[in-house]
Amino acid sequence: MLSEPLQNEFVALLGADRVHTDPATLALYASDETPKSCTPEAVLFPASHDHVAGIVAIAGRARLPITPRGAGSGNVGGALPTPGSLVVSFECMNRVLEFDPDNRLMVVQPGVVTDDIDELAASAGLMYAPDPGSGAYSRIGGNLAMNAAGPRAVKYGTTRDHVLGLRAVLGDGREIRTGSRTTKYATGYDLTRLLVGSEGTLALITEATLRLLPAPRRIASLRVCYSGTRAACEAVIRAMRQPVVPYALEFMDGRSIDAVREYGAAEGLPAGTQAILMVEVEGDDEDIPRHLAALEAALRGDGLLEVQSGFSKAEIAHLWTARKSLSHAVKKIAPLKINEDVVVPVGKLADLVAAIDDLGRRHRVPVVAFGHAGNGNLHVNIMVHPDDIDEMTRARACRLELVRTVLGLSGSLSGEHGIGSEKRPFVGLEFEPATLALMRQVKALFDPHGILNPGKKLPD
Amino acid sequence: MLSEPLQNEFVALLGADRVHTDPATLALYASDETPKSCTPEAVLFPASHDHVAGIVAIAGRARLPITPRGAGSGNVGGALPTPGSLVVSFECMNRVLEFDPDNRLMVVQPGVVTDDIDELAASAGLMYAPDPGSGAYSRIGGNLAMNAAGPRAVKYGTTRDHVLGLRAVLGDGREIRTGSRTTKYATGYDLTRLLVGSEGTLALITEATLRLLPAPRRIASLRVCYSGTRAACEAVIRAMRQPVVPYALEFMDGRSIDAVREYGAAEGLPAGTQAILMVEVEGDDEDIPRHLAALEAALRGDGLLEVQSGFSKAEIAHLWTARKSLSHAVKKIAPLKINEDVVVPVGKLADLVAAIDDLGRRHRVPVVAFGHAGNGNLHVNIMVHPDDIDEMTRARACRLELVRTVLGLSGSLSGEHGIGSEKRPFVGLEFEPATLALMRQVKALFDPHGILNPGKKLPD
Repeated sequence: MLSEPLQNEFVALLGADRVHTDPATLALYASDETPKSCTPEAVLFPASHDHVAGIVAIAGRARLPITPRGAGSGNVGGALPTPGSLVVSFECMNRVLEFDPDNRLMVVQPGVVTDDIDELAASAGLMYAPDPGSGAYSRIGGNLAMNAAGPRAVKYGTTRDHVLGLRAVLGDGREIRTGSRTTKYATGYDLTRLLVGSEGTLALITEATLRLLPAPRRIASLRVCYSGTRAACEAVIRAMRQPVVPYALEFMDGRSIDAVREYGAAEGLPAGTQAILMVEVEGDDEDIPRHLAALEAALRGDGLLEVQSGFSKAEIAHLWTARKSLSHAVKKIAPLKINEDVVVPVGKLADLVAAIDDLGRRHRVPVVAFGHAGNGNLHVNIMVHPDDIDEMTRARACRLELVRTVLGLSGSLSGEHGIGSEKRPFVGLEFEPATLALMRQVKALFDPHGILNPGKKLPD
Repeated sequence: MLSEPLQNEFVALLGADRVHTDPATLALYASDETPKSCTPEAVLFPASHDHVAGIVAIAGRARLPITPRGAGSGNVGGALPTPGSLVVSFECMNRVLEFDPDNRLMVVQPGVVTDDIDELAASAGLMYAPDPGSGAYSRIGGNLAMNAAGPRAVKYGTTRDHVLGLRAVLGDGREIRTGSRTTKYATGYDLTRLLVGSEGTLALITEATLRLLPAPRRIASLRVCYSGTRAACEAVIRAMRQPVVPYALEFMDGRSIDAVREYGAAEGLPAGTQAILMVEVEGDDEDIPRHLAALEAALRGDGLLEVQSGFSKAEIAHLWTARKSLSHAVKKIAPLKINEDVVVPVGKLADLVAAIDDLGRRHRVPVVAFGHAGNGNLHVNIMVHPDDIDEMTRARACRLELVRTVLGLSGSLSGEHGIGSEKRPFVGLEFEPATLALMRQVKALFDPHGILNPGKKLPD
C-alpha cells in the first residue's frame, strides 16, 4: 500500500482523479495478456509530459518501481506489475499533438491507439506502416516499447523504422528529446532507436514523432497451398529474392491447418495441404495483376498444390478465412498457449519448421507455428493444460529446446513481441557476456535507481 | 613520436609491415577531404578483429588516442588525426566474410569499398541500397561511422537502415556483438543503430552484417525545370505524398544552374530555369512509363517550364549532365567550399532555399545549394578564397546564420556527412543540454579512457 505522504504527493501533482488505489482498479491493472498477475500499489494516469516527469521525480526519491502500461495487450509480461510497483498508465495521454501531411509526420502521445494513427494518416492519403495484430486496441507507447510489427513489416520494417524522434523522461527524472523531424539524420547518437524496443526500462516515452508513408492504393491476395512445409519455405526464399516486395507474406504450418480443419474453417483447401502461404501485394489497378503474376511465378515449385487469387474485398476475406480463424481454432487444442515469437534468417525457416515438428513429437505437446514468413518470424504456440503438471514439464523442456534451436539457426528470441518478464530466462543464451554486461550498463546509465520497469527485458 | 616500447608492442602484435612511422606514410594519413591536416604518431593497418582488439588494449593502457580511418574520403574531419593520435586504417580489413543471397545478407570487414558490396550483391540479383557519392572509393566502415547515404535514401533510407548486426571493440577493449542476422529484432537494446553514425567515438566496428534488397530492374529519369525554387520545392512535397516512391529526387538551385551554365554544361536547359529536379524511378518495362507519368503529374504545377524524360542509358546520362558537372562547375566559383549538409523536413525546403539566397546576398558570398530534395537534405556550399580574410569572416557569419536558420526550420545539422571535427561547434545549438549530457555519458560508458576518435562528434 502506498504511504499516505507519497499518495498525497501524487495527488498534489496529478489531482485525485488520476491517482487510484481502490482494489477494483488495482485488480484491473494487475495483469496483461499473460496468465500472471501482481497487484500494484497504485495506478497513476498522467495527462502530460510534465505529469510523467513529476511522477518519475517522486518515484525516484522514494525508490518506487514504475510499471509503464499502454493497453496491457502485450503477451510477454512487459506491463505486468512487480511487487510494490506503481502502474503508470498512458491511456489518458491519447492526443495527436500534430499531424503534418506535407512533412509526412505525426506527433503523438503514447496513449494513442495504433490503428487510430493509421486512420488519421489515411485521411490525407498516408499511412502509418507498422500493423501489429493488436492495433485496434494497442497503444502506440506499447508498440514503441516492444518494437511492435505485423504483416506489413516484410515490406516496410518494424516500429523502430518509423520513428523520427522522441521526448522521454529517464529514470532519474532527466528529460530528453531525441532524433529530429527529418528523414535523414547524421548529427547525434541515435538514442531514438535505442529507446524503441527498450520496453520502458530506459525511459518513459512521452511524445513520439512518427514517420508516415504514402498510403497503399489497392491490395490483392494470393493463397498458396503446398503439400509440405519445406516446399513452402523454399518458395518464401524465392519470393524474397525477386523485386516485387510483398505487402504481406504469411505462413501456416500443418498443425495450424489441422486446427483450422477441426474448427471447420478449412473449406476449399485442397486435400493434402500441409502448408499455406498468404501473400498480399499493393499497387494500382494496372500493377496488381502483374505483381501477383511475378509473385506467383516465384512461389511456384515442387510441392505446390494450388494458387488462388483474390481481388475484391469479399474474395480477399474468403482467402484469409483459414488464417483469420487460426487464433480461435488454436484455443480448441488446449486452454493455454505458451507463445514464442522466434525469428530466424529466411533461409533457415524450413529447418526451423522441421525442428518444431520434431520437438512437438518428442515432447508430446501440440505445437502450432504460423507467422510472418517473409521476415522469418514465427509465432510458435505450445498448447497446454496448465493443470497437467506432466504436460507443463514437457512443454517447458520443449520451449527451452526451441529457443536453443532458434539460436543455433542464427535466430533471435523475439521478432516483435519483446522479452518482458516471460522470456528473460533465455536472454543470456542469445548474448555474449560482454554484450549483455554493456546492456546492463546502458540500463544503469539511463535509470540509475533501477525504478523503470524492473524485472523486464534483461535477465537478473 | 611513438615511444620505442609501444612501437615494439604494436610490431609484436601486428608485424612490422603493419606499423608505419615513416614521414611519408604519416603525411599521407595526416588529412582527409577537409583542408586541414595533423600528423599522427603512427599508422597501423590491422588485418583482423583480433588485431583491432589488441591495438585498443595497448592504446587504452597507454592512453593513446586512436583516429579510425576508412578511405579518408569524409569531408567533416571525421578521420582527421588529433595531436598525438594513432591512425588505425581499416584498408587491409577488406574481405567479404560471407555472402548469403538466400538470407539477403553480407558480412563484411570495414575496409570493403562501398560500391564493391553493391556489385557483389548485384551478381545475385540483389543490391546494397545506400549509395553515397563517394561509393567508388569510400569504405563501408566510414559509411557506418557517418551513417552515409545518397540519392537512393529517398526510397530506401540511410546506412543505419541496412545494418543487421555488428562486431565491435569498445574503447577499453571489450568486444561485443550487436543485433542479429534477422530482419526483425525485439530482443536486446538496439546497440547496432547506436554505433552506426557514432563516428568511431563509441567503438571500432570490425564486422558488419548488411541487409540486402532485391536489385532494381530498370531505371528511368525525369529532368524537370522550374522558373523558381519555390515552385520546385512545392513539387517535391507533392511528389513525396503520392504512392510512387521515387528512386532519386534531387534538387539544384538557381546558383547551381548559373555555375553549370558558366561551366558550359547547361546545353538544352530552357531559358529562365531557376531550379531543376532530377527524378528517377525503378521498375520493370511496364512499370516505368506509368511510374514516370504518376511522378510527372505530381511534379506539374505553377512555374514548371519543361519535363524531359530519359529511358536509355545515353538519354539518362544526357539528362544528368548538368547535375553531374556540378561539383566541377562549383570549383570555378572559388577555390574552397565550406560544405554544409543540412536537412529540414521536406515541407520546409522552400523556406530553406529562400533563406540561403538571402544569406548569400546579405553576407556577399556565393552560396550554391543542391542535394537530396526528397529527404530535405541539401548540400549548401559557401564558396570562398581562403586567403581573403574579409570574405572568410563573412563566410563564417553566413555559415552560423545558416545553421541557426536550419534549426529554426526544425532541421538538423547533418543529413549524411556527419559532424566530425568541423561541425562540432554547432552541435550544442541543436541539442538540449540534458540530451547532450546523456550523449556524453554514453560516450564515457563505451569509451571510458576517451581514446576513440577524440575531438569528433560531440562538442568539448
